[in-house]
Amino acid sequence: MATVTTKTGQVVDRLALDSMLRRRLFYTPSFEIYGGVSGLYDYGPPGCAVMNNIIDLWRKHFVLEEDMLEVDCTMLTPHEILKTSGHVEKFADWMCKDPKTGEIFRADHLVEEVLEARLKGNKEARGQKVVVDEEKEAKKKKKANTKAVKLDDAVVKEYEEVLAQIDNYDGPELEKIIAKYDIRNPTTDGNLLPPVAFNLMFQTSIGPSSNMPGYLRPETAQGQFLNFQKLLEFNQHSMPFASASIGKSFRNEISPRAGLLRVREFLMAEIEHFVDPEGGKKHARFEEVKDVEMCLLNRTVQLAGSTQTEKMTIGRAVEIGLVDNETLGYFLVRIQQFLFKLGVDPARLRFRQHMANEMAHYAADCWDAELQTSYGWIECVGCADRSAYDLTVHKNKTGAPLVVREPRAEPLKIEEWQADLDKKKFGPRFKKDGKTVAAAVDALSQELLEKLALDLEQQGKIEVDVEGVGSGKVVLDKELITIEKRTRVENIREYTPSVIEPSFGIGRIFYSMIEHIYWSREADEARGVLSFPPLIAPTKVLVVPLSSHASFRPLTQRLMTTLRRMGVSNRVDDSSASIGKRYARNDELGTPFGITVDFQSVNDNTFTLRDRDSTKQVRASEEEIVQTIKSLVDGEETWEDICKRLPEFTGQEVE
Amino acid sequence: MATVTTKTGQVVDRLALDSMLRRRLFYTPSFEIYGGVSGLYDYGPPGCAVMNNIIDLWRKHFVLEEDMLEVDCTMLTPHEILKTSGHVEKFADWMCKDPKTGEIFRADHLVEEVLEARLKGNKEARGQKVVVDEEKEAKKKKKANTKAVKLDDAVVKEYEEVLAQIDNYDGPELEKIIAKYDIRNPTTDGNLLPPVAFNLMFQTSIGPSSNMPGYLRPETAQGQFLNFQKLLEFNQHSMPFASASIGKSFRNEISPRAGLLRVREFLMAEIEHFVDPEGGKKHARFEEVKDVEMCLLNRTVQLAGSTQTEKMTIGRAVEIGLVDNETLGYFLVRIQQFLFKLGVDPARLRFRQHMANEMAHYAADCWDAELQTSYGWIECVGCADRSAYDLTVHKNKTGAPLVVREPRAEPLKIEEWQADLDKKKFGPRFKKDGKTVAAAVDALSQELLEKLALDLEQQGKIEVDVEGVGSGKVVLDKELITIEKRTRVENIREYTPSVIEPSFGIGRIFYSMIEHIYWSREADEARGVLSFPPLIAPTKVLVVPLSSHASFRPLTQRLMTTLRRMGVSNRVDDSSASIGKRYARNDELGTPFGITVDFQSVNDNTFTLRDRDSTKQVRASEEEIVQTIKSLVDGEETWEDICKRLPEFTGQEVE
Repeated sequence: MATVTTKTGQVVDRLALDSMLRRRLFYTPSFEIYGGVSGLYDYGPPGCAVMNNIIDLWRKHFVLEEDMLEVDCTMLTPHEILKTSGHVEKFADWMCKDPKTGEIFRADHLVEEVLEARLKGNKEARGQKVVVDEEKEAKKKKKANTKAVKLDDAVVKEYEEVLAQIDNYDGPELEKIIAKYDIRNPTTDGNLLPPVAFNLMFQTSIGPSSNMPGYLRPETAQGQFLNFQKLLEFNQHSMPFASASIGKSFRNEISPRAGLLRVREFLMAEIEHFVDPEGGKKHARFEEVKDVEMCLLNRTVQLAGSTQTEKMTIGRAVEIGLVDNETLGYFLVRIQQFLFKLGVDPARLRFRQHMANEMAHYAADCWDAELQTSYGWIECVGCADRSAYDLTVHKNKTGAPLVVREPRAEPLKIEEWQADLDKKKFGPRFKKDGKTVAAAVDALSQELLEKLALDLEQQGKIEVDVEGVGSGKVVLDKELITIEKRTRVENIREYTPSVIEPSFGIGRIFYSMIEHIYWSREADEARGVLSFPPLIAPTKVLVVPLSSHASFRPLTQRLMTTLRRMGVSNRVDDSSASIGKRYARNDELGTPFGITVDFQSVNDNTFTLRDRDSTKQVRASEEEIVQTIKSLVDGEETWEDICKRLPEFTGQEVE
Repeated sequence: MATVTTKTGQVVDRLALDSMLRRRLFYTPSFEIYGGVSGLYDYGPPGCAVMNNIIDLWRKHFVLEEDMLEVDCTMLTPHEILKTSGHVEKFADWMCKDPKTGEIFRADHLVEEVLEARLKGNKEARGQKVVVDEEKEAKKKKKANTKAVKLDDAVVKEYEEVLAQIDNYDGPELEKIIAKYDIRNPTTDGNLLPPVAFNLMFQTSIGPSSNMPGYLRPETAQGQFLNFQKLLEFNQHSMPFASASIGKSFRNEISPRAGLLRVREFLMAEIEHFVDPEGGKKHARFEEVKDVEMCLLNRTVQLAGSTQTEKMTIGRAVEIGLVDNETLGYFLVRIQQFLFKLGVDPARLRFRQHMANEMAHYAADCWDAELQTSYGWIECVGCADRSAYDLTVHKNKTGAPLVVREPRAEPLKIEEWQADLDKKKFGPRFKKDGKTVAAAVDALSQELLEKLALDLEQQGKIEVDVEGVGSGKVVLDKELITIEKRTRVENIREYTPSVIEPSFGIGRIFYSMIEHIYWSREADEARGVLSFPPLIAPTKVLVVPLSSHASFRPLTQRLMTTLRRMGVSNRVDDSSASIGKRYARNDELGTPFGITVDFQSVNDNTFTLRDRDSTKQVRASEEEIVQTIKSLVDGEETWEDICKRLPEFTGQEVE
């Protein structure tokens, strides 16, 4: 894995960043005073504000801009729905238990951890020229994963191939790999039991009589599918359209690690774009985005054991069939645009295509937007073409017409064999079996009808299989049945739409993006800075009075009120700490701008405005400062623009 | 119960309103194609937009305006926390089972339903002059609750008294009432089993090994309490301060009815305002609100069996001790202001004080903001003074210092008895029991120390109870112990803050508010209108082109883009329906303004602007129309203001 550096070229010091994020209460382990629960975190004031800003932007970028229909469905979901969707059977990870210690490991993570450790040991060993005999000895020792052990070139290649397609293995395959490479409990070196499936849904029971089992939803998608018919009607039967939903989902992770990246309760934002499966899934606005360049990692490359990406315009990717269709391609671009607005580093974003086994069997294509962090490449957004799978299974289960019906431009003429029963004679002849026989005739295939028409003409009667009536065979003569080839005209076309589903893990985006915008300023000691874009920053402006003198208070109050009225969130720091300390605290909080109220302000109502990233200051009148901030926060001007039009101020040292 | 009418004086037709809300997809039963689950609802696009607008306003009105610290804590909560908070034991309702049918009733609701039905029957009967003998007969008949049966005056009074304090009864009291008034299954008239407690929390299990039981939180409050220490530090140790949280909570209701008013999963917004319990819980901004008039229903009136409210300024209510303190009073006013901004009818808002048994034992005072609806008066916001209860129980359980420590202005001098042990002699004397004995001495009360000091002086030795050491009594002589009265100086004051908790049920507010703003327009047939204030309306502007002619499209597009850029949500309806139908649909959706694009618009770029409530129109240039809308949506002008400055347009009938 390449070393991950900040924008100023420093290696990301995850421990320092993490400790800063907790100290500034961006997030904190839930229930910490009770010892905490792994995989559960609370967001404190600045984290909560950033999450809200991400959601606001998401809503503007997707829901408003694309006229999506936002819905809010319940998290509690009865068993039957998730049984139908396949989650009860398939929403599982493979876990291995150590029978001696009782420890439980997620099988794929264990394989990854052990093989990566061995590859690391190999590198160290090659640096140290470990001889082959020692290597074999070491392999058998405990904590093999921390040992510097040289591996055969062929073994290294095998390990790398396994790791490149680690998401592609099911339970039995993982079992084989664990056996083949002798993977054990990394701490005790004990043997593990074979992997078993563990369903990741939290189970509960709805109502007082415990007779309705249910789950906490694992995704927001199902609620949207179940409402398809109503949403289509709300959209005045116009296709294509998209629904969207923002809310919490839940996964009972086997052993959550990696902080905010693998948690048991998380905020998702999901879009279900419903599109006609015929006509190549074109998108009306694809033209606008076709020249946008993307960084793509395709499935063929991964299956060959590599992670080499390729730059390509989305237009080209769709043209050569790498990305399945325009609609999918359009959303990949929109996802990229959204991530860039958040401040994601373009060099650390890639789109990775799912491998065949990794995708659900029904999916036509699937790409993950991955962000590079100190934990590796992290899947932050999935974008799948789920085809008509979900609507079809729910339709089949409930009989609800989860379909689009639209008038055909040209009526469709269908030549087909039709069988008519003479009702007057038919009823008295079969009595109570009448319905069963009629249903059996109705169900006859075109092929069979064609053959029976010939029989009827030649023999004057036919024999039809009818389960449950008499001997299971019923004879019908010409008096009872007519079979003819006729032309049927269909004016209405009925189809089940395909679904393109961009699905965002907001917490993962939050953390990965923070790694991208974090850096540290050179000073006596390194000081952390979070360079949030103004739109995303938790607080936009810090107001710092230089003195606690009473004459400062009205100015501070007026600035606060004016900014708040303009919708610009701000905080006053009138603590007794030095101005440098106050700014340092707010650099850690990612506050992009600072207004200093000094003695000159009291005299002439001018203020200095400080830029977080450059620490440069300009000075201007109150009105100008306030307007400038508004313009910066709304993204109409950049700090460089401001420096061109307002005089720099160098009077105080506020580093 | 008084009849509930719309602002135009019509009786609220709940069935018509409900059917309209579902048809327009404000909300819909969850999982309806699977038969639905009672107490679970999804919000469709307009409902979702209104909910988001309510939340936005809430955040501005409370979090931003009052500088609160917003946090987002997990819903999954381990057993231990809710055990400590008292929810495992006490968060329950009383349910009665019908042993024959298996039906389960919530006991207090059953009593309410049956007694209200009897009172209604009594009124009918008095109108019909039913004689006394018939009445006694009828009582014994099935479905007694639908019969017109006259009751004794004394019985009527008893029923009314029970109903006025229905929230005041616990399980045993409900059992007595059910027996006394012979309350049975209203459908079958079968006898019911005595009430048993049913815990309302949804239970689940966290992690793969099923050894960590947990619940879905019943309120957002606990997460805020657990983070108190970190929040106080984030707030730079400054008191008072408030945290706030917006998120879903869960209650496994016994038998949910009443649509959105009693559901199993719901959005809450809760504030925990932490305040020094000493000094009368003053509030710095109380002066600003003290003259605001409130409609109050106090507990004494309710215990006397009445529901008579009284108008009073909050200043007066705090002064006479009706409302416990300024901080509680301040929040009651802020709650009222928030509800008014949403469009709540002032005549249908009251604040009801909890009765003693209804409040938690630790609460100092509690008031509910109730909105009158066709279901009766509905608790939409609770505002309780929870005293120091929650912080204290979590502190005692975990040892975490959930306290405020602040320097005293004047050091506190405390005269007290202190016991010192001579460590050199003490250790060898008691050996392994040393710690136990020392702890017992440490735990001695001031009273006991005073007595022991005398004993020690008079007898040269004392006897101390020490459980688990020797005979349970230990003798200490003058060589081992000294007891003296000394003065201790405390420079730091340590206290556990009280918590004032305004707690909002957003779904209940949503539904009740809609009943307040719903009315129907006289036309060929009555047409529903939802008069949302522009700030809350799901969509602000409907753009209606009068023709589908191509020359209209650029104008429509430009209006859409301009409005969107200004952050004003809008929709174009270019369907082929008549303009009247299109406006009628949007009256039901509560869209406050409509722009008509007509043939004149194509020529001179002027448009008409329609007001939903009056259906009046004005005409002006594009720029003026767009600016006017912005000003209306931001609340800077009202429609009346607009009518004064723009010419009325009467060219088309768009009723």
